[in-house]
Parts: sequence; C-alpha cells; structure tokens
Amino acid sequence: MQPALDVQVREVGLRDGLQAVAAPLATSAKLAWIRAEAEAGVREIEVTSFVPARLLPQFADAEEVVAQALRLGGLQVVALVPNLRGAERALALGVPKLDYVVSVSRTHNLRNVRREREASLEDFRRIVQARDAAGRHHTTTLAAGLSTALGCSYEGRIAVDEVRRCAAFLAEAGAQEILVADTVGYGDPRQVREVLRGVLAEVAGIPVAAHFHDTRGLGLANVLAALDCGISRFDASLGGLGGCPFAPGASGNIVMEDLVFMLESMGLRTGVDLERLLAVRELAARHLGADQMHGALASAGLPRHYRGAGDGARPH
Amino acid sequence: MQPALDVQVREVGLRDGLQAVAAPLATSAKLAWIRAEAEAGVREIEVTSFVPARLLPQFADAEEVVAQALRLGGLQVVALVPNLRGAERALALGVPKLDYVVSVSRTHNLRNVRREREASLEDFRRIVQARDAAGRHHTTTLAAGLSTALGCSYEGRIAVDEVRRCAAFLAEAGAQEILVADTVGYGDPRQVREVLRGVLAEVAGIPVAAHFHDTRGLGLANVLAALDCGISRFDASLGGLGGCPFAPGASGNIVMEDLVFMLESMGLRTGVDLERLLAVRELAARHLGADQMHGALASAGLPRHYRGAGDGARPH
Repeated sequence: MQPALDVQVREVGLRDGLQAVAAPLATSAKLAWIRAEAEAGVREIEVTSFVPARLLPQFADAEEVVAQALRLGGLQVVALVPNLRGAERALALGVPKLDYVVSVSRTHNLRNVRREREASLEDFRRIVQARDAAGRHHTTTLAAGLSTALGCSYEGRIAVDEVRRCAAFLAEAGAQEILVADTVGYGDPRQVREVLRGVLAEVAGIPVAAHFHDTRGLGLANVLAALDCGISRFDASLGGLGGCPFAPGASGNIVMEDLVFMLESMGLRTGVDLERLLAVRELAARHLGADQMHGALASAGLPRHYRGAGDGARPH
Repeated sequence: MQPALDVQVREVGLRDGLQAVAAPLATSAKLAWIRAEAEAGVREIEVTSFVPARLLPQFADAEEVVAQALRLGGLQVVALVPNLRGAERALALGVPKLDYVVSVSRTHNLRNVRREREASLEDFRRIVQARDAAGRHHTTTLAAGLSTALGCSYEGRIAVDEVRRCAAFLAEAGAQEILVADTVGYGDPRQVREVLRGVLAEVAGIPVAAHFHDTRGLGLANVLAALDCGISRFDASLGGLGGCPFAPGASGNIVMEDLVFMLESMGLRTGVDLERLLAVRELAARHLGADQMHGALASAGLPRHYRGAGDGARPH
C-alpha cells in the first residue's frame, strides 16, 4: 500500500519533452528513464503519444514503450491520443489512462490537428464511446486536456468563458480528469486563479490538473496559484525537457525537480525521493545532452539540512 | 508627478550582483546602467555598498557612484552600509536611503561581519543616532535588512521567532523599512507566508520589503506568496545578476525582467517599461558578459499581444 500524497506530480517529458527533440531517443533509453523515475516515486508518467509515426518519428515506438511500461509495478501509465485513431491504438494495448487534447484557441487547434475546435471536442465523445464499446469503461481513464487555456501564440489572450465552455463540454462528454494547459507559457498567477476557478466551477466533482510551461519563468508561481485554488495534480518534465516551438532557446515544461523541491519544502508530500530524482536527471542527460536540461535545483543542490515533507521531524 | 504604483521594484544588481563579480566594473559602466534602468522606470536602485574597499574592491568607487547617481532625477538612490563607519561615509554624501543588514543566523552574522548578531543589532541604534546627529532625520531613510531570514547555509532552518525578534528590535530602534531577505535561496512559499506574517505582526506601520534569491527556482513563487501577505516592495537584479557563494553556478537574485513581467501580467503597475528594461539588460550584458545573466523572459521574448498593467484596454 502506497502512502497517501498531498500532491501528485506527473512526468510528461517522454511525451511533451521528446516531442521537441528531433533525434529519436532509443526505446531502451526511454524505458530506463521511465523505470528509474517510477522507482524515484513518480507514480504517473505520460510515456508516449499515439500520433502517426510519419508526423513524429520520435513516437514510432509507442506500442513497444507502452507494452514495456505496463510491466512496471505501481506506475500509472498514460499516453497522449490526438484523435480517435490514436485512442483505438492505445485501447488495444490496454493503456490505463489516455490524455486527449483540444486547443481552446481555434487557430491553434486548426494548426495543430487541422480540425475545427468543435470537431475536436465532438471527437472526444467518439473516444468515450470507443472506450466503452471496447469494454474498458472501468479500466481506462479518459482525461481531457485544454491546450492554450492561458494564452495562444496565434490569438494572444484566450477568454476565460471559452475555457469554461470547453471544460464543461468535455466533462459532460465523460472526461474523468480535466487538464488545464498553458501550452506556450503565457499564463500569470492571477490569470491562473481566474481560469482554474472558472473551470472548477464548471466541472464540479471531476479532478482538475494543471500543466504549466516555464517559458517566461512563471511556472512555479503558477503552480502556487493553482495550489491556492485546491489543485493537487501537476504535470512537469525532468530537467524541464521540451521547448516552445515559438520561442527558440526557451525552456519548456516546468522542471520536475524544482516542482518537487517546492512542494516538499512546503510540507506537501509528493512521494518522490528528490535525491533519486536528481540521479534520474543525470541518466536522462546522458542520452539527451546536458544542454537540453534546465532547472535551478540541479545547479544549486539541495539546501543544507534539507528535509522533505515525509520527515515528521521537520518544523511544519 | 509620477503615477502611483501597485508594486515597487528595486534594483540591487549593482550591489548584491556585483558583489559576486570579481572584476571591478568601470564606474562609467555602472552609471550608464543606473541611468538607463532609471529611465526604464525603476525608481529605486541600490547603487553601491560602503564596505571597506580592501574587502570588496568592486565598491572602491562608492563615493563617485553615489555622487553621480544623486544627479539623476526621479531616482531613489540607496546604498548598503555594513556598519557605523559605512553609514558615516554615506551620510556625509547625503545618500537619501541606507540599507543596514543583520543576519538572523548568528553563525552567518559572525562569518559575514565578524560580530555577534546582538552587536550588529545594537549598531543599528548607533547608526540612527549618527543620522539624527548629522541633522538628516528627515532626509535620510534608514532601512534594516534581515539576512538569512528564510534559512542559512550554516545553520539550515531559522526559527520564525528569531526573525520576529530581530525585526521588532530594528523597528523599535528606528528602522523605517524592514527588508526580509532570503540570502541563500532556501525559502519556500509556505515559509515566506509564515515569516512575513510574523514580521508584519511585529512591525505594524513600517513598510516591509522582500529580497528573494532564485537559487533553487522558487524566487517568483515566493514573490507571489509575499504579494498575498500584502508585501508590495521587492528587490531584484537585472538578469538575476549575482550568484550564491555556497552554490557555484547557481543563479542569484530574482530576475528583474521576469519579476516585472509577472507583476505587470497580473495587472500590477510597476512603472517599468519592459521593452526598455530588456534593452538595459543588453547594455549590462555587454560589460559583464552574457553568461552572467539569467532569466526566462529574455530568452523567450514577450508574449504576442502582451500588454502591461498600464494599458487600460487589457481585460483585467
């Protein structure tokens, strides 16, 4: 029995991070990373994306990665599915959790998946039906992500009402988790609170997770803003792997090590062993190159006398 | 008449930043930086430190820097004074605001200024007396900083009661501003709230400012935590200039550009023109080397459609 957590952190570097890395990472290296990070205490990992391999060769090994990852104990294996076809591939493999993503920005949705936003929203209904028709209603969790929910590099600001409308649609259609994503790193803490409170009001009872990028340095401040709204599920990537296609050289997802450090320092249990996590970072850096990795904790090291939230002896 | 601000940001790179840079920056380069940043809208700059030049040759030009900076209009010129002798030098020049610093950590205070913490606290009384004896009661503001208030690389955690006690002493002794400083970047948002609420309770009526380092990536999250406590004065340095002597390669102060970006994005007026500030960064980088400069905004650029808090047309 695993101890209860205050906050659940989810690794998305193998999907959102590697998506930005042109050279395919060897399947064995992906699996070594997944295994080591699961052993460090990260209980949910988005291991791949079921996009067509011709579009993203990085994920040509999606089936193999999933099959191997499913053999690891104590790990929630997640895969991104961009459409019904991807969902069918994932369902056939018995992936226990799928992330489907729609962009709230109509322009971004068109450019990203070449469909109208409403068509993408409707597709989620078909994925729910496909899941249920496959008899996997009780064994495959369907999460729905709202991309560009905090801004779009094409459209700029996104109206909160639009985010709420999409969230309500997906919840009604059967989403079991709503993921609010700051895809391009435009969000600020005030906006995060406004958007998350709006979404929470629409989807009462369904867990809401947050996916922030650190493109402009506000990632962890946005996490704090989200914590204040009661959010307790966060995406991050080891070493902040991943970039922003619209900002060459900019960092990508929030940095897993820095996120865990902040949460544990605040007395919030993540279940992650930070020393082991830093060792996983070294492992990933050996394959990907140290210049791909961002993050402050890895440079500065843990504070002297540091104790994580799991240590009952700490002051708060 | 300058418009009212919601938050006041203060540049400390010329003191806290340059303190970590061995090669003296030319006086003319310091003054060009000060002038340009004041023109970008930063209204308070800690321009130097009145430490003995034999200890920190970087500040051998303290008198000259102050004298020139005082000629700039609309700028609050501040100097750090480590002791009574430094305060006397600064008072003789008519510096309008002095920062005196005491470490809450007894060990840090001993190593930093080779005196017991209580001796350093008592010295502040003498500085107040010296200021008043010089007839500068109404023209020189005395701020008192609490170094290592959120942790110490020697002692680890610092008891909140100790921070409160020092703050109360300094307020009683005549401090007109209390600066709570996370000197080594150990603080987390929960602790920031606890410490700041404690200090605010002790020094009712005296402005409290916060000085965070971004050593472990939590700097802006700590700013958000402080904003939530009602703090509206923050130190930062251009490009996060400055390191941590205990963490080679780690970043220093929070990054001014990123701080202003966060605040303005949240609809809080800082008075700073972000595009001009980014140009000042380029100016400083030419003298100091781009590798000294940290920060996310400078890499990623402003979001498309970005509008600062000053734009009445923005949604919030």
